[in-house]
Amino acid sequence: MKRVAFFLVVAAAAACITVSLARASGQAEEAASPIYGVTIPSGYRGWSLISVTQEEGDFNQLRAQLGNEIAIKAYREGTLPFPDGAVIVALHWKRVPSDEDNKVFGRVQAFVAGSPVNMQVMVKDSKKYAASGGWGFADFTDGKPGDEAKHKTCFPCHEPAKDRDFVFTRYAP
Amino acid sequence: MKRVAFFLVVAAAAACITVSLARASGQAEEAASPIYGVTIPSGYRGWSLISVTQEEGDFNQLRAQLGNEIAIKAYREGTLPFPDGAVIVALHWKRVPSDEDNKVFGRVQAFVAGSPVNMQVMVKDSKKYAASGGWGFADFTDGKPGDEAKHKTCFPCHEPAKDRDFVFTRYAP
Repeated sequence: MKRVAFFLVVAAAAACITVSLARASGQAEEAASPIYGVTIPSGYRGWSLISVTQEEGDFNQLRAQLGNEIAIKAYREGTLPFPDGAVIVALHWKRVPSDEDNKVFGRVQAFVAGSPVNMQVMVKDSKKYAASGGWGFADFTDGKPGDEAKHKTCFPCHEPAKDRDFVFTRYAP
Repeated sequence: MKRVAFFLVVAAAAACITVSLARASGQAEEAASPIYGVTIPSGYRGWSLISVTQEEGDFNQLRAQLGNEIAIKAYREGTLPFPDGAVIVALHWKRVPSDEDNKVFGRVQAFVAGSPVNMQVMVKDSKKYAASGGWGFADFTDGKPGDEAKHKTCFPCHEPAKDRDFVFTRYAP
């Protein structure tokens, strides 16, 4: 009986490792968004920070926007429209209270990034994406792109930011 | 009269540019924190993101924690204690509503990073800072380090996180 339990544990561990390796090796990157064909950019998690946001209400999220070198350079130099090759990712996490931090403060006031909710990607290619302001969009949940209906909302939602090349996020000082 | 106004505008612009250049060239980096002698690390704004936090109450801030390559590598590999050379910066901004974002959502729910409040730095040097868990601390407001009394609070405040080498922030998934 003990031996069966041991094998079950080993099997479960092996399954976890397999999933981790698949993620680490970037299998998620192969999935492309409908309409735009945008994939999760390699190495995005190490990119420089553009800014952070908090969404209240139904979202209840903390968010960070990161940019690749082309995007960050454009932000810093105030270049608009963004040059081709600029990529911006927005990471959305559940906003959760931090018991550890609150213990230090002596009251509930600290919230941190909890589990990931989704991530969004904007890729600048003024020719390829001419019909959507030069941007290709993608929305991934757990590495999988949302459906076509979801991706039809991306560009209309970003249109109010037309004056800033359809990008809402400003560079945090 | 017009000419005087013109010169005033030019003079004001020149003054702004001088201040900007001074900041860009890193004059602020020369100021070191009391007790620890920690300065603002060069290029920190381009470092990779560790996580984001929100502080309610009196703070009312959005925050981002960034790390240099040594710190990020240690985070990703779960290395504790952090190796010498690891540097973590915490950027604290005023949390302000985003009119632009809220217009899109049709309600007040989006908050973004506003003006900078202060920034904090932790530098790992296990020998130099042996008396404070191996960390040197600094707290800068507008490029200037706080006084000695303020810096006396750094280590005691971080002591509850002793199990994680005195670092509160966890790496956001």
